[in-house]
Amino acid sequence: MSRSRVLRHADFRWEGVDVKAYKDPVEGLFRGVTRQVLAGGRDAGPPLAFELRYFEVEPGGYTTLERHGHAHAVVVLRGRGSVHLAGEEKAIAPFDCVWVAPDTPHQFRASTDEPLGFLCVVDRDRDRPVPLGVTGKRGTGTN
Amino acid sequence: MSRSRVLRHADFRWEGVDVKAYKDPVEGLFRGVTRQVLAGGRDAGPPLAFELRYFEVEPGGYTTLERHGHAHAVVVLRGRGSVHLAGEEKAIAPFDCVWVAPDTPHQFRASTDEPLGFLCVVDRDRDRPVPLGVTGKRGTGTN
Repeated sequence: MSRSRVLRHADFRWEGVDVKAYKDPVEGLFRGVTRQVLAGGRDAGPPLAFELRYFEVEPGGYTTLERHGHAHAVVVLRGRGSVHLAGEEKAIAPFDCVWVAPDTPHQFRASTDEPLGFLCVVDRDRDRPVPLGVTGKRGTGTN
Repeated sequence: MSRSRVLRHADFRWEGVDVKAYKDPVEGLFRGVTRQVLAGGRDAGPPLAFELRYFEVEPGGYTTLERHGHAHAVVVLRGRGSVHLAGEEKAIAPFDCVWVAPDTPHQFRASTDEPLGFLCVVDRDRDRPVPLGVTGKRGTGTN
């Protein structure tokens, strides 16, 4: 994105932004998650120190329970669900902001009746997440 | 923010986040703008390479027409308005994403009937904005 522009939104998709897989699939680690990179990332024009992504979790879906040394700054845009933060489940709704501090085990879950969509900002230079086990069953394993 | 947590949202204010002045006031350069820092910034815990801010522009208000060497990644959360990008006015609405490339003259304006609120992500290390003149009258001066 080397020139200034407006990326039009419609139904949580953005003009010119690809909807990608969340991660390489690993059985049971996550379910029904897509990723859109709104700014930064490999395709970006000028260097940025961050990436701005939008993740969407289908009803009943969840992200990987994981931890890493970098932080997440999250703002919920749509739906309801919960975030697991170091052993606690907290309900989230639009426009709650979630601060995931470094090395905190975390996982996002959508409610069963609507998608959960959220922006997530991270540093461009960051470590790889470490998955913390199969988490299809709620509440198993946080270490 | 050294520990993980949910910053609850209510009416575009966030638990524990101060509503601050947009900038030091300079007559005519902007009108009716507040700023909330959701992540990063001087009060942050661990170092981040970015800052995540929420700006709100009152009905009929506007940010400074300015330019700078760093980029903005913006996502509109509420209201309607327009963004001036290098001489063009473009309408914006929730959840449009605005990419302001380095050195682009830009300005955000709220419609006259509701506040315009948007997230804006920037690099932590960035240059100071250069204002481009008094802009209370729409469309004056873009250099």
